[in-house]
Amino acid sequence: MKEEISRHMTPEDFRRNGHAVVDWIADYMSRVEEFPVMSQVQPGEIRAKLPAQPPRIGEPFEAIMRDVDEIVIPGITHWQSPNFFAYFPANVSGPAILGDLLSSGLGVQGMSWATSPACTEVETHVLDWLVDMLDLPAKFKSSGDGGGVIQDTASSAALAAIIAARERASSLATNASGVDRRFVAYTSSQAHSSIEKAIRIAGIGSDNLRLIGADSAFAMKPELLEEAVRADLDAGLDPFFVCATVGTTSSNGIDPVRAIGEICRRNGLWLHVDAAMAGTAALCPEFRWINDGVELGDSYCFNPHKWMFTNFDCDCFWVADRAALIKSLSILPEYLRNKATESGAVIDYRDWHVQLGRRFRALKLWFVIRHYGVEGLQLHVRRHVEIAQEFASWIEAADRFELAMKPPLNLVCFRHIGGDEKNQQIMDSLNESGKLFLTHTKLDGKLTLRMSIGQTHTERWHVARAWEMIRALE
Amino acid sequence: MKEEISRHMTPEDFRRNGHAVVDWIADYMSRVEEFPVMSQVQPGEIRAKLPAQPPRIGEPFEAIMRDVDEIVIPGITHWQSPNFFAYFPANVSGPAILGDLLSSGLGVQGMSWATSPACTEVETHVLDWLVDMLDLPAKFKSSGDGGGVIQDTASSAALAAIIAARERASSLATNASGVDRRFVAYTSSQAHSSIEKAIRIAGIGSDNLRLIGADSAFAMKPELLEEAVRADLDAGLDPFFVCATVGTTSSNGIDPVRAIGEICRRNGLWLHVDAAMAGTAALCPEFRWINDGVELGDSYCFNPHKWMFTNFDCDCFWVADRAALIKSLSILPEYLRNKATESGAVIDYRDWHVQLGRRFRALKLWFVIRHYGVEGLQLHVRRHVEIAQEFASWIEAADRFELAMKPPLNLVCFRHIGGDEKNQQIMDSLNESGKLFLTHTKLDGKLTLRMSIGQTHTERWHVARAWEMIRALE
Repeated sequence: MKEEISRHMTPEDFRRNGHAVVDWIADYMSRVEEFPVMSQVQPGEIRAKLPAQPPRIGEPFEAIMRDVDEIVIPGITHWQSPNFFAYFPANVSGPAILGDLLSSGLGVQGMSWATSPACTEVETHVLDWLVDMLDLPAKFKSSGDGGGVIQDTASSAALAAIIAARERASSLATNASGVDRRFVAYTSSQAHSSIEKAIRIAGIGSDNLRLIGADSAFAMKPELLEEAVRADLDAGLDPFFVCATVGTTSSNGIDPVRAIGEICRRNGLWLHVDAAMAGTAALCPEFRWINDGVELGDSYCFNPHKWMFTNFDCDCFWVADRAALIKSLSILPEYLRNKATESGAVIDYRDWHVQLGRRFRALKLWFVIRHYGVEGLQLHVRRHVEIAQEFASWIEAADRFELAMKPPLNLVCFRHIGGDEKNQQIMDSLNESGKLFLTHTKLDGKLTLRMSIGQTHTERWHVARAWEMIRALE
Repeated sequence: MKEEISRHMTPEDFRRNGHAVVDWIADYMSRVEEFPVMSQVQPGEIRAKLPAQPPRIGEPFEAIMRDVDEIVIPGITHWQSPNFFAYFPANVSGPAILGDLLSSGLGVQGMSWATSPACTEVETHVLDWLVDMLDLPAKFKSSGDGGGVIQDTASSAALAAIIAARERASSLATNASGVDRRFVAYTSSQAHSSIEKAIRIAGIGSDNLRLIGADSAFAMKPELLEEAVRADLDAGLDPFFVCATVGTTSSNGIDPVRAIGEICRRNGLWLHVDAAMAGTAALCPEFRWINDGVELGDSYCFNPHKWMFTNFDCDCFWVADRAALIKSLSILPEYLRNKATESGAVIDYRDWHVQLGRRFRALKLWFVIRHYGVEGLQLHVRRHVEIAQEFASWIEAADRFELAMKPPLNLVCFRHIGGDEKNQQIMDSLNESGKLFLTHTKLDGKLTLRMSIGQTHTERWHVARAWEMIRALE
C-alpha cells in the first residue's frame, strides 16, 4: 500500500518490468530489419499523438511501453539496422547495452576519485589498455605524464584540446595580458564542423580558424599548412593549435599526421588528432598506417561509440601532458575537497572535461573489450573494410557509377555519372523505400553518395542487396 | 557456430544475460544498505586487481559479472543508498533506468530532427510539459520564441548560456571587431565552480568574472551587483552576463532573482538562472517562491538527474530566445543537410549544445513523469523537505550543535560548536563507519557539515538514525 502511494518501483516490480524491457530489446534486435530504416513521419506527427498535459497520477508501466510501440517507434530512424549506411555508424552491442544498464543501476558519480574509486580506476585502466590495443604512443598512458579519459563526443574532446592548447600557449606567450592577442588555429577544409564549433565556443572566433586546402584524396596539404602558419606569424598573430583528421566525416580522408606533426613541432603548435570513426581500424595491424606520425601529437581521440560496438556516448581522449589539460580546467571549491584529492595520488576526472558530473561510462567499454576480446573486435573491423572494398570494386566495374575517391577503409563515396539531380533522386528514392538509408556529401563540388559500412550486424549480403537496389535506379 | 566466432551476442543470449543484469540491479536495490556508503578502498587498489593486458579472446558474460562483484563493487561509493547525504543527490529510479535502457537498445542519434524524429519531438514535448509542471514563464515554451533542450549537466547549460549571451552582446556592440573587447560576467561568491569553468572555457577569463558578495543567507546582494556593473561600465568594459543561483551547492542559498533580473534588464545583461538541484522543488506550489522573478531571465536550468529521480545525465535547459542560442552554435556542413532542416519546420538539437551526437535522453524523463505522475513527484519532494526541516529542528534543540543558516529546503548546513577540527573528526568518523556519508563546506570561514536529504529512498528513520550517530560523537 505504501509503495502504491509512493509509486516507487519496488525491486520486484523493477525485476518484472526490467525483464519486459530486455525482452522488448531482444525482440527489436530480431525484427529491426522489418522497419523502414529512415523514419517516414512528417514534422509534428509524433507530438500530435502526445497529450498536452503530463499525467497527474502515475500510469502503469504497460501503458508507457504501449506508447513506445505506437507513438515512438514510427518516429525512429533505425541506426541499429544492418541496412543503415548513412552518416557514420553509432553501434550498440549486447555487452555495451548491459554494461551501461549496470552503470544506470549503480547510479554513481565519478567526478572525483573519492566519489567512486572504481569509476575512475576502471576508466584509467581501460584507456591504458586501448593505447596498446591501437598501438598508440606510450606517452598517452597514465603511467607517464599523459593519460586518457572518456569524453562524451569528439566535439567535446576537440574543445578540451583547444582549451589545453590555449593554456599552454598563454603561459608561453611573452604578451601576458591575453585579451588582445590573436590566437589562430588550423584544420583542413574537410575537417568536421565540431572543430569550428569548438573554436567559436572557446572565443577564438571562426575568423581565426584557417581551413587548409586538401589534395585529391581529401587529405590536408601540409605545405599549405606551413604557408598559412608562416603568413600568420609574419602578421604578428599567434598560431597555437592544429587539428588533423584521421578519417574525415565527409569522405574518410586521412590527413598526413607525420608531416603535419613536424610542422607543429617546429612552430610549437598543439597537434590534436581526431580519429573519431576511423580510429577503430587501428585495432588491426594492417590498418595502423592511418596513425603514422601520431607520436608527434599532443592529443588524440576516437569514438568507440561509432565503430567499436559501444553505446553512445563514449569518446576516448588522450593527452601526452595531462598537466596542461588539468591546469586549464581545474577549479577546486571547498565542497569538493577530500583527502584523496589533496594527497595527489589520484585522478579526479572532473578536471579533464567541461562537465563536473560523470557517469560510470567505462563499464560499457570494459564489457565490450572483455566480451569480444581483441581478436573478436579485429574480426568485425576487418570484415567491414573487406565488404566496403568489395562494394567499391562493384562501383568501379559499373558503367554509370564512379568512385569519388579510392576508399581508404569502410566508407565508399560514389556517384552516378548523371549529375547532382540524378544522384539526389537515387538517394531520395532509396531512403523513401525504407529498405536502406544512406546520405550524401559534396566532393569536388559534386553531390556524392556515401555508403558507410560499419553497423554491428551489416553482412556482405546486406551490401549486395543495397547495390542491386542502387543499380536498379541507374 | 558463426556467432561463436563472431562473438556478437545473439538476441537469445542478450535476453538471458539481460535478465541476469536486471536481477542483479533488483538485488542491489534490496541490499544497497548493506554496503559501506563511502568506498573504503585505497588509491590504486582497484587497478591492482585488473589484468595488465586486455583479453585476446572474448570471455563469458558470467566471468565479467563475477568481476563486477569482486573488483568493482568494493570501489563503489553508493550514491543510491538512502544513507547517502553527501554533495547533492544523483537519483536513479526504476522507470528512469528502464527508459534509459530502452534508449541504449534503440541506439539512435538525435542530432537532427531527421536522424530520429521521435528523439527530438518527445524531448521538446516533455520540456514544454515541465514548464507547466514547474510554473516557469510561458516564454520558455517551444510554441513561442523559446524552447527547452536536455543538456548533459548544468555546467554545459551554463556554457551554452554564456555563448548565446556573448553572441547577443557582440551583435549589439558598437565595437564590431570583437577581439579587443573586454566582456565581464557576474555571479555570486557562492555560485558553483562550473560558472567560472565555463567562463574560462569561453575564453572570457576568470579575471573577468566578478564574484558578488552574499548576505547572511548566502544569497547574492543585488546592490553589490549593481555597483560592480556600474564600475565596469565606467571603466569602459562590457558587462554581458549574470548567473543567479537558486539553491547553491555549498549551502542551498537562494539568490533574489527578481532584484537581479531588474538590474539585468536595465543594463541589457543576459540573466541565466541555475537551479540545478533546488529547481525540482518548484514541482510543489508551496516552494515556487524560489523562482520569483524568473520571468526576467533569458535562460534557466535544473537537473532532473539530481532530485527528480532521473538517471544522470539529464539537465533541462530553457531559453527565452532560441534564435540567439542557435545562431551562436549552428554550423551546417553538407553531410548534415536534409529536407526537414532546410524546411525550417523542425528543431535540430545539435545547434543547442556543444556536442553534435546525442542519445535519446528524453525517454527516461518521459518514463519518470508518466510513472510517478505530477502528484507522485510532488509527494517525494515534500517528504524530503519535511524530513530536512525536522532534522534542522533537532540541531536547533541540541546544545553542542548549531545551524549555519536556516535551511530553505532539503539541505541542512550545521556544525558542532567545538570548531573545525572537531567537525572534521565527526565527519571522518561517520564516513569511515560506512553507515552514512556526508560532506562539508565552509560557511563564514568555518568548516560546516552538509546534510543533503534527497536520495530517492531516504525516509525519516534513516535521518533519525544518522542524527543518533552524529549526537553520539558530540
